[in-house]
Amino acid sequence: MSIVVVGSVFFDSIETPHGKVDRALGGAATYFSVAASFFTPVKMVATVGEDFPEEERSFLQSRRIDLSGLEIQTGLTGSWSGRYHEDMNQRDTLDLQLNVFADFRPRLPSSYRDAQYVFLANIDPKLQSLVLDQLSAPGVIGCDTMNYWISNARGDLEQLLGRVGLLVINDEEARQLSGERNIVRAARKLLEMGPKRVLIKRGEYGVIQFSSDSIFAVPAFPLEEVFDPTGAGDTFAGGLMGELARSGDVSEAGLRRAIVCGSVLASFVVEDFGMRRLKKLTREEVDRRYRQFVSLTDIEAR
Amino acid sequence: MSIVVVGSVFFDSIETPHGKVDRALGGAATYFSVAASFFTPVKMVATVGEDFPEEERSFLQSRRIDLSGLEIQTGLTGSWSGRYHEDMNQRDTLDLQLNVFADFRPRLPSSYRDAQYVFLANIDPKLQSLVLDQLSAPGVIGCDTMNYWISNARGDLEQLLGRVGLLVINDEEARQLSGERNIVRAARKLLEMGPKRVLIKRGEYGVIQFSSDSIFAVPAFPLEEVFDPTGAGDTFAGGLMGELARSGDVSEAGLRRAIVCGSVLASFVVEDFGMRRLKKLTREEVDRRYRQFVSLTDIEAR
Repeated sequence: MSIVVVGSVFFDSIETPHGKVDRALGGAATYFSVAASFFTPVKMVATVGEDFPEEERSFLQSRRIDLSGLEIQTGLTGSWSGRYHEDMNQRDTLDLQLNVFADFRPRLPSSYRDAQYVFLANIDPKLQSLVLDQLSAPGVIGCDTMNYWISNARGDLEQLLGRVGLLVINDEEARQLSGERNIVRAARKLLEMGPKRVLIKRGEYGVIQFSSDSIFAVPAFPLEEVFDPTGAGDTFAGGLMGELARSGDVSEAGLRRAIVCGSVLASFVVEDFGMRRLKKLTREEVDRRYRQFVSLTDIEAR
Repeated sequence: MSIVVVGSVFFDSIETPHGKVDRALGGAATYFSVAASFFTPVKMVATVGEDFPEEERSFLQSRRIDLSGLEIQTGLTGSWSGRYHEDMNQRDTLDLQLNVFADFRPRLPSSYRDAQYVFLANIDPKLQSLVLDQLSAPGVIGCDTMNYWISNARGDLEQLLGRVGLLVINDEEARQLSGERNIVRAARKLLEMGPKRVLIKRGEYGVIQFSSDSIFAVPAFPLEEVFDPTGAGDTFAGGLMGELARSGDVSEAGLRRAIVCGSVLASFVVEDFGMRRLKKLTREEVDRRYRQFVSLTDIEAR
């Protein structure tokens, strides 16, 4: 089953203690789509400027990513520039040019409208709702958000959460949105806001999933080098939702396997700058690391 | 098989956002012993002053903790007073009185000397080595340390590490001792210093174990309230070493089960101030939470 994703396509200029890269293809929708494409076909909804290179279009299409929802507007593609600190859990935004993304108003091609699986990456919650309005009968809806919307569009965000099945956010956002410091209490409050499951990303410590009757925690894959954390969260969501759409299994067991798939993809993307590692990644490597995750976490050391 | 532990017995005065407690029984050897006693008999090596109450002796003895190695010296038992910050990962020491602990020189009763299992809690590495010198043929040796010894007694500590099988430290100590920020690289360096296994405690994120050919990560148990984190690390070590001594299984599978036992005990101790929760804890509760750990981490959702 294919999956619709809405979000940003940007050019990122990134500096980390391990080096730098200039105007690499990035943005939440991009990382999500490339990760999800390892499991299922993807239909992207986003906007770019007239400067968006044919080469990048071809790359995305080669990954069975449908670009009929990628609108080309007069102007330039959005761009972001950031620098990571020594410990890589912190970064500074050096420059942000929204460009055509500032006027983004998602419009779904008719071929997208019967999608069962959809992921609303981090954009204005009003626009996230607008995407749902255009779908005839979405079954599995995931969404992300960020501190800016939690502070400045809480009403819209709360309305959206009433329509969403899976909320995928990081620990700081979970605390801010719930008003609870403790992550278990935060998750309980977020579940009361609508989502059936809350997945909290904890960076180098992995992911913890809460539902009304179970908790599942998986560590991040232990890596000797993290070259560039950019896009790790969106890549996680892509692997997760891609595997869900592929398997159609949204039981607890299916969710857990999908969370590990997301963790696997995220563990690869940080091994090189931007999208470089995902471009080389093979399905065999994905499967091997999945098995390593099982052995990393298996209490019975089977 | 019983286990010998050497370390501190203190009185702790603790303030957390959830309340306070005055002169509660504490110290690394105490937390370790009480936790280990859920699995195996314990032989304690420590020192207290003449003020140490008979009531606390009786409590420890009721937990099948052998106190023939608990020396009573002229003077007062050591005491510590600390206050935790709102986020509980940080604390300030308000007062520290080493008292008789300042002159502690561990002497093992002859009935301790053939112990196979030993844990060297955080004290001067010279004294930790002195304990090993008094054992005829220790088989499984675990040790802890802290930032002070890493900075001020590195030579002694490195000598000790050459004799130790299991190094149990927290993430900041692992970084400081290895000089590596990345936790995987830090662990590799620590393994080169002698220990067969390095167990890194990551507070609310759980524990990660490294050996030359495997990595095992287990999350902390997700709790809605942490009342008092004091002693959690020593309680973890107690559950871990206690279960190892009980089972005699030091294979990878045995270690993993023991790490979960340590995590279980640590998850209980923080539920109330000082030793209160451990005093009420039953073996049935331990077994139930062990099964909850399995379900929390099981990728296959069996």
